[in-house]
Amino acid sequence: MAMRRVASTAARAIASPSSLVFTRELQASPGPKKIVGVFYKANEYAEMNPNFLGCAENALGIREWLESKGHQYIVTPDKEGPDCELEKHIPDLHVLISTPFHPAYVTAERIKKAKNLQLLLTAGIGSDHVDLKAAAAAGLTVAEVTGSNTVSVAEDELMRILILVRNFLPGHHQVINGEWNVAAIAHRAYDLEGKTVGTVGAGRIGRLLLQRLKPFNCNLLYHDRLKMDSELENQIGAKFEEDLDKMLSKCDIVVINTPLTEKTKGMFDKERIAKLKKGVLIVNNARGAIMDTQAVVDACNSGHIAGYSGDVWYPQPAPKDHLWRYMPNQAMTPHISGTTIDAQLRYAAGTKDMLDRYFKGEDFPAENYIVKDGELAPQYR
Amino acid sequence: MAMRRVASTAARAIASPSSLVFTRELQASPGPKKIVGVFYKANEYAEMNPNFLGCAENALGIREWLESKGHQYIVTPDKEGPDCELEKHIPDLHVLISTPFHPAYVTAERIKKAKNLQLLLTAGIGSDHVDLKAAAAAGLTVAEVTGSNTVSVAEDELMRILILVRNFLPGHHQVINGEWNVAAIAHRAYDLEGKTVGTVGAGRIGRLLLQRLKPFNCNLLYHDRLKMDSELENQIGAKFEEDLDKMLSKCDIVVINTPLTEKTKGMFDKERIAKLKKGVLIVNNARGAIMDTQAVVDACNSGHIAGYSGDVWYPQPAPKDHLWRYMPNQAMTPHISGTTIDAQLRYAAGTKDMLDRYFKGEDFPAENYIVKDGELAPQYR
Repeated sequence: MAMRRVASTAARAIASPSSLVFTRELQASPGPKKIVGVFYKANEYAEMNPNFLGCAENALGIREWLESKGHQYIVTPDKEGPDCELEKHIPDLHVLISTPFHPAYVTAERIKKAKNLQLLLTAGIGSDHVDLKAAAAAGLTVAEVTGSNTVSVAEDELMRILILVRNFLPGHHQVINGEWNVAAIAHRAYDLEGKTVGTVGAGRIGRLLLQRLKPFNCNLLYHDRLKMDSELENQIGAKFEEDLDKMLSKCDIVVINTPLTEKTKGMFDKERIAKLKKGVLIVNNARGAIMDTQAVVDACNSGHIAGYSGDVWYPQPAPKDHLWRYMPNQAMTPHISGTTIDAQLRYAAGTKDMLDRYFKGEDFPAENYIVKDGELAPQYR
Repeated sequence: MAMRRVASTAARAIASPSSLVFTRELQASPGPKKIVGVFYKANEYAEMNPNFLGCAENALGIREWLESKGHQYIVTPDKEGPDCELEKHIPDLHVLISTPFHPAYVTAERIKKAKNLQLLLTAGIGSDHVDLKAAAAAGLTVAEVTGSNTVSVAEDELMRILILVRNFLPGHHQVINGEWNVAAIAHRAYDLEGKTVGTVGAGRIGRLLLQRLKPFNCNLLYHDRLKMDSELENQIGAKFEEDLDKMLSKCDIVVINTPLTEKTKGMFDKERIAKLKKGVLIVNNARGAIMDTQAVVDACNSGHIAGYSGDVWYPQPAPKDHLWRYMPNQAMTPHISGTTIDAQLRYAAGTKDMLDRYFKGEDFPAENYIVKDGELAPQYR
């Protein structure tokens, strides 16, 4: 892993053009490293499934391996506030492993305090909980397990589309409330067939979703920075829409599949939502902060948005009084789509692989880098 | 419509070999007919959607048309017990239109009382609420709108598979209860990819489901009376399993797609459920009575069945104390999968078409017949 050692804190501070950035040497010393993992706590659930690797108790299943190599491995779910467990280890940790499901927010302030920090690994996909510009300026490497849960998220999105289109939840709630009122469900239940579905972003997850949507005989649209080549487009059966707002005005169902960046933060505000079809359904497993929280609530209340489903919030965990818990026609869950047992096995293996390469001074798979040599990956620029 | 007039009630009683059955003449007289429709009541929902044709208030949207032709059209949701509205009209109705969602149970006793009855139309698919043998013996014609909601049901089945595999409902309930516990969901949430899915029955709905499952990269199996031709099998990507129990023992997910007949009634009893994989997920949008109610409850309680989802019950509406409302890991709804707005438009049009042909003495589309000339359609034999 070819990374240059940073000379001093001062050197970092002046290193603004990316070509001049000095990065911290990932293999500064061959000695033992202090590795901190921040994962959600499972309590009684930790022992219920031997493959449940993603929780704090099971810690990606790499404790024995790390300790046998002489490294220190601290794992905690306690990530918020000045007195939290994570904060105690910030000054001397070398590697921080975090996840999008229970995000350790790595702010510029934390990066400044973390004098030994070299590597930020996301066990999963989506590293926006890290201040990526600050990480780049500080010469850190940020990497994630690209591809580890794309299928998991795409499947979950298709489930959410169907749950909204078919008005599933009111029906289920009738069952548990001892009721039976088919009309109350059916008057706004539809087939997915024939509807127009547009994805904002057609990267790895968006494409997997489109492939899964193909047999449903919908009108499939996508907006992205880049048009797919014609062969792939034909195979997926989706049409490129260069103009986002033009696409949105055609969609019965909008799916958000774009990373959270400075450009996408709050991109679905009051004005953009007003441009959507009345009665639109929205699925967002990307990031909560892509939406203006209050604008979504208002549009759900007015009926302009007829259904909103997703597993991403800001902040996470969502507080008890988060407005999205209480708006009508929501089909929300905590952040789970990318942390199926299958996904956990994949991102645990991918994290272990990157740690192994890090110890050996080898490069990671190229697609895993989010920040390398002071440069952000294209999707985060 | 070539149907022979029945000579007398006595003649019907002796007509047991189907070749000897005398059927009532569908076009007995060119005069006005009394048509009764039994649909679920919508109350305040009736006016919320102009396409909500399937409710009692909107009555398939054919009232004006029927009355303009001089026919009488009685519509009611009141279908149970000796004093119900339906019972009053049994003695002199010519045509009964019913649906599977709010089934008018047409027993042998009712058929005996219905001296003028000629035609039983199911607005939708699935005519098991009619005593088909009694209908055949009485020379009645039974027909449904074949194909009208197959896509609707197949889509709904795929939604239910995903809801169970991905453990959606506990997550959603956390949201509405002000909680956030990713582990409680994730320890038993999986990807659909790579799992073995078997359908019991691969008729119209089963095939549409298999087609929609194909991009999910599952191991797809089907059991049916007939093997598909190899070309269709390859296109769908599913393997034929001649032996039902052998298939069931391989499945992570079992979907029921067989009609309710004397052979399939209670086919999933304690013994058969014991042959399923521990932790199996079951989706049943076919008919509730295919399952042994108590055996399903017991297996959900023991964890042998890890999830059960469907929209069919026996009887319907399901009473408040129906055990399936209270068993763990259920994702049930009232009977809604085939009554989306899109499906309603199709089965309303199909019902109108058959009535029109009936008035004109023309045959129905061949695939619509469930009982014709004293013969049951193959899937009901």
